[in-house]
Amino acid sequence: MESSFRPSHADFTYTKKYGLRDHRGGGRSSARETANWVVAGSVAKQIIENIDITAYVSSIGAVELKYSYNDLDLAKVDQNIVKCPDNEVAKRMILNINEAKSNGDTLGGVISCVIRGVPIGWGEPIFNKLHACLGKAMLSINAVKGFEYGSGFSSAKMKGSEHNDSFLKDGVTKTNFSGGIQGGISNGMDIYFNVAFKPTSSINITQDTINDKNENIKMSINGRHDPCVVPRAVPVVEAMTALVLTDFYLINKTSKI
Amino acid sequence: MESSFRPSHADFTYTKKYGLRDHRGGGRSSARETANWVVAGSVAKQIIENIDITAYVSSIGAVELKYSYNDLDLAKVDQNIVKCPDNEVAKRMILNINEAKSNGDTLGGVISCVIRGVPIGWGEPIFNKLHACLGKAMLSINAVKGFEYGSGFSSAKMKGSEHNDSFLKDGVTKTNFSGGIQGGISNGMDIYFNVAFKPTSSINITQDTINDKNENIKMSINGRHDPCVVPRAVPVVEAMTALVLTDFYLINKTSKI
Amino acid sequence: MESSFRPSHADFTYTKKYGLRDHRGGGRSSARETANWVVAGSVAKQIIENIDITAYVSSIGAVELKYSYNDLDLAKVDQNIVKCPDNEVAKRMILNINEAKSNGDTLGGVISCVIRGVPIGWGEPIFNKLHACLGKAMLSINAVKGFEYGSGFSSAKMKGSEHNDSFLKDGVTKTNFSGGIQGGISNGMDIYFNVAFKPTSSINITQDTINDKNENIKMSINGRHDPCVVPRAVPVVEAMTALVLTDFYLINKTSKI
Amino acid sequence: MESSFRPSHADFTYTKKYGLRDHRGGGRSSARETANWVVAGSVAKQIIENIDITAYVSSIGAVELKYSYNDLDLAKVDQNIVKCPDNEVAKRMILNINEAKSNGDTLGGVISCVIRGVPIGWGEPIFNKLHACLGKAMLSINAVKGFEYGSGFSSAKMKGSEHNDSFLKDGVTKTNFSGGIQGGISNGMDIYFNVAFKPTSSINITQDTINDKNENIKMSINGRHDPCVVPRAVPVVEAMTALVLTDFYLINKTSKI
Repeated sequence: MESSFRPSHADFTYTKKYGLRDHRGGGRSSARETANWVVAGSVAKQIIENIDITAYVSSIGAVELKYSYNDLDLAKVDQNIVKCPDNEVAKRMILNINEAKSNGDTLGGVISCVIRGVPIGWGEPIFNKLHACLGKAMLSINAVKGFEYGSGFSSAKMKGSEHNDSFLKDGVTKTNFSGGIQGGISNGMDIYFNVAFKPTSSINITQDTINDKNENIKMSINGRHDPCVVPRAVPVVEAMTALVLTDFYLINKTSKI
Repeated sequence: MESSFRPSHADFTYTKKYGLRDHRGGGRSSARETANWVVAGSVAKQIIENIDITAYVSSIGAVELKYSYNDLDLAKVDQNIVKCPDNEVAKRMILNINEAKSNGDTLGGVISCVIRGVPIGWGEPIFNKLHACLGKAMLSINAVKGFEYGSGFSSAKMKGSEHNDSFLKDGVTKTNFSGGIQGGISNGMDIYFNVAFKPTSSINITQDTINDKNENIKMSINGRHDPCVVPRAVPVVEAMTALVLTDFYLINKTSKI
Repeated sequence: MESSFRPSHADFTYTKKYGLRDHRGGGRSSARETANWVVAGSVAKQIIENIDITAYVSSIGAVELKYSYNDLDLAKVDQNIVKCPDNEVAKRMILNINEAKSNGDTLGGVISCVIRGVPIGWGEPIFNKLHACLGKAMLSINAVKGFEYGSGFSSAKMKGSEHNDSFLKDGVTKTNFSGGIQGGISNGMDIYFNVAFKPTSSINITQDTINDKNENIKMSINGRHDPCVVPRAVPVVEAMTALVLTDFYLINKTSKI
Repeated sequence: MESSFRPSHADFTYTKKYGLRDHRGGGRSSARETANWVVAGSVAKQIIENIDITAYVSSIGAVELKYSYNDLDLAKVDQNIVKCPDNEVAKRMILNINEAKSNGDTLGGVISCVIRGVPIGWGEPIFNKLHACLGKAMLSINAVKGFEYGSGFSSAKMKGSEHNDSFLKDGVTKTNFSGGIQGGISNGMDIYFNVAFKPTSSINITQDTINDKNENIKMSINGRHDPCVVPRAVPVVEAMTALVLTDFYLINKTSKI
């Protein structure tokens, strides 16, 4: 273990970059790091107390929640252990996870997040766009491979005439493909985004890899490993969101001299 | 025009945030801003001259390039005006754009980018992960709605046993779902990512909106507007990539004391 | 010239650090750099328009202004070319400079600066104390060798019972040895400080030095050089002060959540 | 105490800035803060182990050390409790402190610091000049009122022909009025500077002040207070110096691409 590189872990890159490595669970590359982010996020939430941040699991492996957050009761997120606001879908997610576990395998998934109550005007116009900072924060969470906000990747297939959000009145648009952010700045509508998580790398199945002498070896990883970390990342997504929003709350105090 | 808010533009948010607005084309929120990024990127590329960065258009509206970059000849990117390395697919993209144009409408799309030659060890472990900084840079480009790297959103449907990249030898893995980055740090394999662009907001079709007196009005936008900006964003993606990589090249000089 | 290192210039350090050098006047190490600071400062002054910043020359070589700023008429600063608000002292300064010039020599001096109208509360408590940021800004000006604020170096010889500033009423102290800043934060009284400038290095006298082959040589410097740059640095001191204060004006907007 | 503002303390400014205050000893404005800087500095010193940093007390009140550091044996700094390398001068300093203490009064002083072994090339040319960063660090230490390096304030009275440091050979000058830094960048000679400390504000003598209702009151401060903090600030000066130098050590790794 001490001299072997686990596939798709950070063992190899840390060893090469720093010349040393903590083989007992990944060291700084471990998601244990996120525990303190959640602590900090709980402080941040007290500063921006009028803003409501709710994250939930919208897919695990092949099981997907088909509805938009507007058609869900987000108060139900904590009713099941996979933090999916639809109990029927949650049951299938749990079945899927149990099956992966019995095979020593792991599953990925998607977390969706909805933010309500951000005033108009948060976000900087060029290099600290609100969605760019949210994206960077999410991409800083272990195992994240993708971020999209508002219409996201699906916007690439849309026409402008479908995608444009008509203004109905001050701070209210008819549709919300913009995801509450226009030109990098909040427009008063709900902000929402999706975060993709890969299946975690610690599987209980023998794998091919190399050791630090560059020799090909077989490796099996033991220990207490999660078959799916996605539900546990829900509070991490909420915490990072709260930290980003609190930064912009403070920055925005200086936007009009 | 001066007092009306164009749907899905930054007119509304800028007016509310700053109390003033340049109605002649979007001011600072215009993608004209990116011209100087391309200039800066060309300087950056000279600093990291051994690294090859190639971006290309992989979808326009419903027309998609189905192949991975490994099955494409990236030398062909500049053979057509939509910067798609498959000429047959490019023809269909052009047809699509022309149709949108004749309707006064706009199209979105996806740009893919491949980076070859990044040494092992670029990227910081916690808050400046290499992919998080690339993601923030891409999300800073006008009209971008999503970013994914390596296996991206498709990883959410995969199992760990499928997704793990076995090490074959030092700096070489059998598959590359990691997208050349593990634990936020480059591992020596190709880095690749996708960037989603929404259809731009300036359409030649009458729309509902409001003016700065919060009155409902009809609006039509005239002027020289692109039906699809995706091909023009290819050099912007490459430039922003070069700038991020150059930052990490310099930072990495201090990684071992 | 191209290969010789002028004594007490930055020729030697730049060559060693960067491996190249602009021998035509010092390149980036030239005080020409400060021209754009003055431009930026003039914008900053418009932002903090209620604050009055006045710098003046308080010594040139051995000629010193003996009075505190409270006993001077600062409106007279621009009445003479050495920017000293006492015309009699100014005359002696000018004589001194002319003598140095005729000898091909240069003189140092001190610039004092007084800031009136800073509200209570600007400055950060630990690492961005108001006086520390002013000090860093002044030490960034070419030829500066020292900075002191309020009682400055003379405080080292005082007793606490002499030095303490009794509060008379809200925002008013009897004396002002604190120099308007307590614990790094402005207290509403005048802020004042002194900046020491060395005699500039370009003298019209033959000097011993080395060239880039490490050979000992004799060198004489020709060209248009100032015998004393201190009066010309007065607007630079004011500009840098305005820039620092504007930063704190903006930062202070977020001090109470 | 809880509602009274101690003269020349940060009680008043903190109350006004933050709307709250820790009356039990100054809270964040206390020099207790510097304890963790010393801890951090001891780590920094291990990183730049070939550099020798020695600070010492060069004056307490009216008692001054008349010699330059070149004429002192810096190994003797720790031979007495006032950290002055001349035992005879130290005795007079101690007498002075004892006298102030018996009067309930306090004394200021000066700390000098010498750095040997900094390679040529540390420091950035415009806004992070080496001496400007050292100055900011020193001005961040509680009770500091002034900073000068090399010839410092005395340079203002010198002529260029006296002040210029002739180069003898690569990295060696005949004199060292530059204080080891030219154009903001280290030149290989010793770096040296002085830091002025005011007499601390907590005196055991009744003083006039106001309370938070803006009423004039008499105040006497009790508790365990130092008559002179200057000797205790010697390790703080060394620690802050080590932290600044370590920053530049790391930054300098990227100076030549």
